[in-house]
Amino acid sequence: MGAVMKAVRLNELGGPEKLHVEDIPKPKPAVGEILVNIKRAAFNRRDVFITQGLYPGIELPKTLGSDGMGSVAELGEGVSGPKIGTRVVIDPTMNWGNDERVWERNGGVLGMPREGTFAEFVSVPAANVHPAPEHLSDDEAAAVPLAGVTAYRACFSRGELTKDDVVLITGVGGGVQSFVLLYANSVGAKTIVTSGNDEKLARAKAMGADVCINYKTSENWSKDARDAAGGGGPSLIVDSVGGETLGKAVDIARPAARVVIYGGTNGDAKIRPFSIFWKQLDIRGTSMGSPEDFRHMLRLFNKHKLRPAVDRVFQMSEAPKAAERLAAHDQFGKVVLAI
Amino acid sequence: MGAVMKAVRLNELGGPEKLHVEDIPKPKPAVGEILVNIKRAAFNRRDVFITQGLYPGIELPKTLGSDGMGSVAELGEGVSGPKIGTRVVIDPTMNWGNDERVWERNGGVLGMPREGTFAEFVSVPAANVHPAPEHLSDDEAAAVPLAGVTAYRACFSRGELTKDDVVLITGVGGGVQSFVLLYANSVGAKTIVTSGNDEKLARAKAMGADVCINYKTSENWSKDARDAAGGGGPSLIVDSVGGETLGKAVDIARPAARVVIYGGTNGDAKIRPFSIFWKQLDIRGTSMGSPEDFRHMLRLFNKHKLRPAVDRVFQMSEAPKAAERLAAHDQFGKVVLAI
Repeated sequence: MGAVMKAVRLNELGGPEKLHVEDIPKPKPAVGEILVNIKRAAFNRRDVFITQGLYPGIELPKTLGSDGMGSVAELGEGVSGPKIGTRVVIDPTMNWGNDERVWERNGGVLGMPREGTFAEFVSVPAANVHPAPEHLSDDEAAAVPLAGVTAYRACFSRGELTKDDVVLITGVGGGVQSFVLLYANSVGAKTIVTSGNDEKLARAKAMGADVCINYKTSENWSKDARDAAGGGGPSLIVDSVGGETLGKAVDIARPAARVVIYGGTNGDAKIRPFSIFWKQLDIRGTSMGSPEDFRHMLRLFNKHKLRPAVDRVFQMSEAPKAAERLAAHDQFGKVVLAI
Repeated sequence: MGAVMKAVRLNELGGPEKLHVEDIPKPKPAVGEILVNIKRAAFNRRDVFITQGLYPGIELPKTLGSDGMGSVAELGEGVSGPKIGTRVVIDPTMNWGNDERVWERNGGVLGMPREGTFAEFVSVPAANVHPAPEHLSDDEAAAVPLAGVTAYRACFSRGELTKDDVVLITGVGGGVQSFVLLYANSVGAKTIVTSGNDEKLARAKAMGADVCINYKTSENWSKDARDAAGGGGPSLIVDSVGGETLGKAVDIARPAARVVIYGGTNGDAKIRPFSIFWKQLDIRGTSMGSPEDFRHMLRLFNKHKLRPAVDRVFQMSEAPKAAERLAAHDQFGKVVLAI
């Protein structure tokens, strides 16, 4: 019998409680791949959706997890570096393709259909392995990959964020939005955040948000956001709520603003074409990030010594509890898993 | 008593029938302006909306009309050219401002609040006067300005149209859309047009449209358009319908496509955020065109010897009939007024 390792496995659908720790065979690095000894992983909403069966192309049993950091354990055939033991983070996007504008989606994301990071070891293509920023703790490094690159692409590659922007960040609790706040602060933009939860707003304030609006207690949050922005409204809006929120965001954007969306939790949006054409707005969709985005993001973290928001660290056996925390939208920043 | 001239005036609201010919004082060119002797003018939907009171900031009585061509009659103080008698077209956008991205709207459009082109003479800023393309008839030259520059900005400045595009043009009958078809053909892009009227589709076909779809008789026009486009759908969509049409257009756009909108006749659009972020689409609003757009547009007309679609030419006394034709959406291309 070969070597075994511990992994958080999903053998059947049924929600977060179906996640459990199991001993499974330790993988070997494939040709062109690197075996990483995972120390910390992190959760994304995607992992929760998979346990609930709300994701295309689910194959079970599987080790979930897109985010991971650890150390290089073994190099596959044809791979000459980095050195064994190097501290690394993993880019979870597989086979982006040749078009910087859009992801080909041939390869999926780490953690489905490929075996993911909620395990002691994972084998990934060498190009997806990057040195971890030295100033980050293990928890922080694990928090970065998927949410960090999604936010990077939303802010910069798609949103063209600069210091002159007034950025509206709707629903600041989510993992990606905490990175958007981090990046907007790092370039010196003015930031306006919304949440229905005063504790999350306090966390955002502590991270440097300039204006915090509770959309549940405000009589008219979008008017408040427009007034706080000045200049006729926010110049950049980053949203993944969709629904009514997106419609309102479009209405309060200033002329020539960009509205970047990477999700639509609340579904269809009713949008007034007049707001778009009269103000010459751009609504720009984005999803994940390219290898180029990932490299630029790590550069930004290193340059500004950025630190992502870590919500809480769970042990492997607590994986269901960790996933429940995301499902309930209780977290601010990333939920980390100690492997 | 000073010199008089004939003009199509609107003294009170009440629809196209309120337009009538009147003798009014002949204007003098203001400082920095040029007096143009108008030979042909053309109608825009805007003129119809004004007669119906559906436009902001209406001041009556007024001479309507944004589009006009004719000859230079007199130069105002401080203006040194062009020579008297030069054949010119007028850029109807006043005071675009310094931001190429968006119009400041301080000056409005020719024909409200400024006195418009439905008259024997009009005084306009010298910078708005351009030599008319020589290959165009008077009717064609008059047809170009407002619809032509709106379409130019939609296609090029905002839409980044190239020969490699597959362009979906929804509702091809309108004045602007006939220019979009003209430009898309001129660069060699593949064109798909829709209309509820087979005669208009035949006109579009004659202008060079590659695929014509009647959305009233098709069981599923958007599926037809996607299939005809190939490559997963159109790469550029130009729309001013809004409503359900815009929602469907977003759903059938290929990954990384641009959806440019300059109007929203059918009102609010229900849009699936998923279509936008998953395919990384851009929805880009546009309105009118900058002086830069206008100059580039004239260059394009001259370079490719383009000819706009002229629907019909009316006499001044027939102005109500001309406006009714637009109100009923009966036209294909531009409705011209002989002065």
